[in-house]
Amino acid sequence: MSTKKADEAQAKPKAAKAKSSLAPILGVAQMVYDKIEKQKAPELSMPLRSLQNVKYNEKVGYFELVGKTKERHLSASTVKTFAQTLHMLSLAKELAVTNDEATKREAYYISKNWGEAKFNEQPESDTVMDDIEAMLMINREVIGFVPEEKGGEIAGNLIVIDKDVETGETLRIDCTKFGSGAYSIPSKVEDLKFETKAKFLLAIETAGMFQRLSKQNYWKKANCILVSMGGVPTRATRRFIRRLADDMKLPVYVFTDGDPYGYLNIYRTLKVGSGNAAHINKYFCVPQATFLGVTPQDIIDYKLPTHPLKDIDIKRTKDGMKNDPFIQNYKQWDKALNQMITMKVRAEQQALAKWGLNFVIDKYLPDKIANTSKFLQ
Amino acid sequence: MSTKKADEAQAKPKAAKAKSSLAPILGVAQMVYDKIEKQKAPELSMPLRSLQNVKYNEKVGYFELVGKTKERHLSASTVKTFAQTLHMLSLAKELAVTNDEATKREAYYISKNWGEAKFNEQPESDTVMDDIEAMLMINREVIGFVPEEKGGEIAGNLIVIDKDVETGETLRIDCTKFGSGAYSIPSKVEDLKFETKAKFLLAIETAGMFQRLSKQNYWKKANCILVSMGGVPTRATRRFIRRLADDMKLPVYVFTDGDPYGYLNIYRTLKVGSGNAAHINKYFCVPQATFLGVTPQDIIDYKLPTHPLKDIDIKRTKDGMKNDPFIQNYKQWDKALNQMITMKVRAEQQALAKWGLNFVIDKYLPDKIANTSKFLQ
Repeated sequence: MSTKKADEAQAKPKAAKAKSSLAPILGVAQMVYDKIEKQKAPELSMPLRSLQNVKYNEKVGYFELVGKTKERHLSASTVKTFAQTLHMLSLAKELAVTNDEATKREAYYISKNWGEAKFNEQPESDTVMDDIEAMLMINREVIGFVPEEKGGEIAGNLIVIDKDVETGETLRIDCTKFGSGAYSIPSKVEDLKFETKAKFLLAIETAGMFQRLSKQNYWKKANCILVSMGGVPTRATRRFIRRLADDMKLPVYVFTDGDPYGYLNIYRTLKVGSGNAAHINKYFCVPQATFLGVTPQDIIDYKLPTHPLKDIDIKRTKDGMKNDPFIQNYKQWDKALNQMITMKVRAEQQALAKWGLNFVIDKYLPDKIANTSKFLQ
Repeated sequence: MSTKKADEAQAKPKAAKAKSSLAPILGVAQMVYDKIEKQKAPELSMPLRSLQNVKYNEKVGYFELVGKTKERHLSASTVKTFAQTLHMLSLAKELAVTNDEATKREAYYISKNWGEAKFNEQPESDTVMDDIEAMLMINREVIGFVPEEKGGEIAGNLIVIDKDVETGETLRIDCTKFGSGAYSIPSKVEDLKFETKAKFLLAIETAGMFQRLSKQNYWKKANCILVSMGGVPTRATRRFIRRLADDMKLPVYVFTDGDPYGYLNIYRTLKVGSGNAAHINKYFCVPQATFLGVTPQDIIDYKLPTHPLKDIDIKRTKDGMKNDPFIQNYKQWDKALNQMITMKVRAEQQALAKWGLNFVIDKYLPDKIANTSKFLQ
C-alpha cells in the first residue's frame, strides 16, 4: 500500500549535519595513518576501565579516572582486534557524517560484512565499542551508538523541547498533558532542551510507585517532576536526569527501596557512577542527587513490613563499606548500612501501602520533604 | 518546601465515580451473605484456569474457556484462603468506590493489616487476585488492580484522547509530536479514545528496532502507528493494541525476530492469548494480527546472519506443533516451523542491518507490506 511512498521518501537523502564526534575520530585515524606512513606499527591508547583506576572526590562528585591507560599495539596476535577497532571507528565516522544512529546489536550485525574481522559474539563488539568510547573520551550516544534498552518515563511540571527529525520543526512536549500515560525518554538526550518551574526532581525506583504518584497528580501537589527509573536507571535516564538537573538547577531526590540494591546499586550508580565506566561518569552521574528513599530508620519510624536480609545482601553491604570509595566518604551512609546489618531486614517502597494506598502521598513524602537537610547524601 | 501545598490538596477528597466492576463484586458478596443468612456454608465459583479448559476457533480468534469450573467451599481447611478471597474482594470494592488503583505489590502489602488472613508471599496474593478476576469475568484493570510492569511505547500517526485525572479536562496526546521520544502506554487503557488516519499498526519486538523506525520517521513514510512491545507484550500493551485496532478498524502487523520465542511466545500470545489466562483472552488477544516478522524463508531470501537453534528451541517448537491449538489450526505455521527445524537456525530482526542500517526501511518493510496476503496468519 504505502511502498511507493516509502521509496520516494527514502530516495531524498537527508541533509546531514556532522556530529561533534567527527573531529576526535579523525584525530585518532590521522595518528594511525601517520605511523603507518612512517612505516612504524600503529598503536591505540585508551584509559584502563576498572575500580583500580578511579578515585572519589566529594567536590567533583563522581568517580574520576586516575590516569592508567592501556595500549593496543598492532602485532600478529592483536591484528584481528586492531582491525575490528578501526572498522568500528569507521562505522562511528559514518554515523557522524550521516547523523544516523546504531544500536549495539546493529553494530554487531554490520560487522558480518567485515570479512575476517567480523565479530562472532556481541560481547566482543560491545567491548570494542567501549574501547572507542574510552579512547575518544566522549559518551557513545554522542557518536551515535545508542543503547538497545528503553529509557525511563517522565510525568510532571516539565516541557521538553525536541525537534522533528525531518522538518527541524521545534516540538514542545508538555509532560503535564499525558493523562494516565507518560513521556518516554529517548535513547539519546543530548540535544533536548527544557522549561520548568518545578522545585525538584523525584527519581523513583519502581514503575508501580511512579504510576501511583503520577495517577494521583502528586507532581502537581508538590510542584515537581517525576522520573520512573525501573530499577538501575539506563544510561539515557541517567543522562536525562543529569542534563535536566544541570540546566534547570534542580535538586534530585532519589526514592528507592530500603535495601542494599536500592542504596548501593541504584542510588550510588545514579549519583557517582560506576567503576567500570569511569571514563564517562562525568556525563552520566548526578552529583546533585540526595537520598529520600526508605532508610533503616524509616523501617522503625513507620513500622514497615520487612523481608529478612539474605546472606548475599549482607556480604554485598559489607563489601561496599570496605571497598566503595563513595561509602567510605560518607560517615552517615556507613552508619545507615551498619544499622541495616544490625536489623537484618530490608523494606520496599511499596511497603508504605500497609498504612493505606495513599499514605505515601499524604504522609511519607511530605514528612520527608519537610526535612531535606536530613537526607542521606 | 511544598509540604503544605501537598497536605491541602490531599485534604479535599476527590469526587469518586464508581467503576463498572462494582455491580458484579456486590453480586458475589450478596450470594455469600445470603448463604450465611440461611446458615449454609458459603461457596465461591470460578473457571478452571489451564490449557485443558480452552479451545481455539478461528472465527472467534482467541482461546476460549470450555466451561470447567472450580468451587471454593468454606471449610476448616479452606478458611484462610476463603477469608483472603473475601478481603481481596473487599479491597476490589474499595477501589471501585474510590476510583483508585493498586498494583499487585501494593495489594500484597495492604494484606499485612488483615491479621491472620495476611499473605506471607506475593505469589499467594497474586493467585487470589487471579481468582477474583476469573470469578467476576472482567479483566482486573477494570477493577483497578494494575500491573507493576511498564507498558510499551507508541510513535506515529495517532492521537490518544485521555483526560486529566483531577480536572477531567480532555487531553489530546499527539504521537507525531514527540521527536526522538515516545508516548508511554499507561497501565490502564480502558478509558482511552483514539483518532487516526493511519493504514496499519506495526507491533515491533525490540526497543532497538522501534527506535530506528521511529527516529527515521518510518511511520510518516508508511502512514502507520509504531508500537514497541519489548519482548512479550505486557497486558497493558496487548489491551492497547486490541482497543486501538478494534476502534479504528486497523490491521495489526507483527514484526518479531525469526525464532521460536518470536513465533510462539510473542506473536501467538498477542494474537490468540495464552492458556492460563483464558478467562480474559477475549479482552487481551488481537485476532486481527498477522505476522510480518522474519520467517525461515526470509532468512534464505535475504541471506540473513543466523544463530544455531538450541536443543531447547527445537523441543519448544515441536511441543508447539504437537500441543498448541493455534499452530494446529494453521497449516502454514506448521510448515514454517518445520522449515525452521530443518534449517536449524534462527535470525533476529536486527540481522537485516547486515545490508545497511536502513535496509529494513528501504527494502524489507516495503517488500513485505506490498504482499500482506502472504503474511502468516
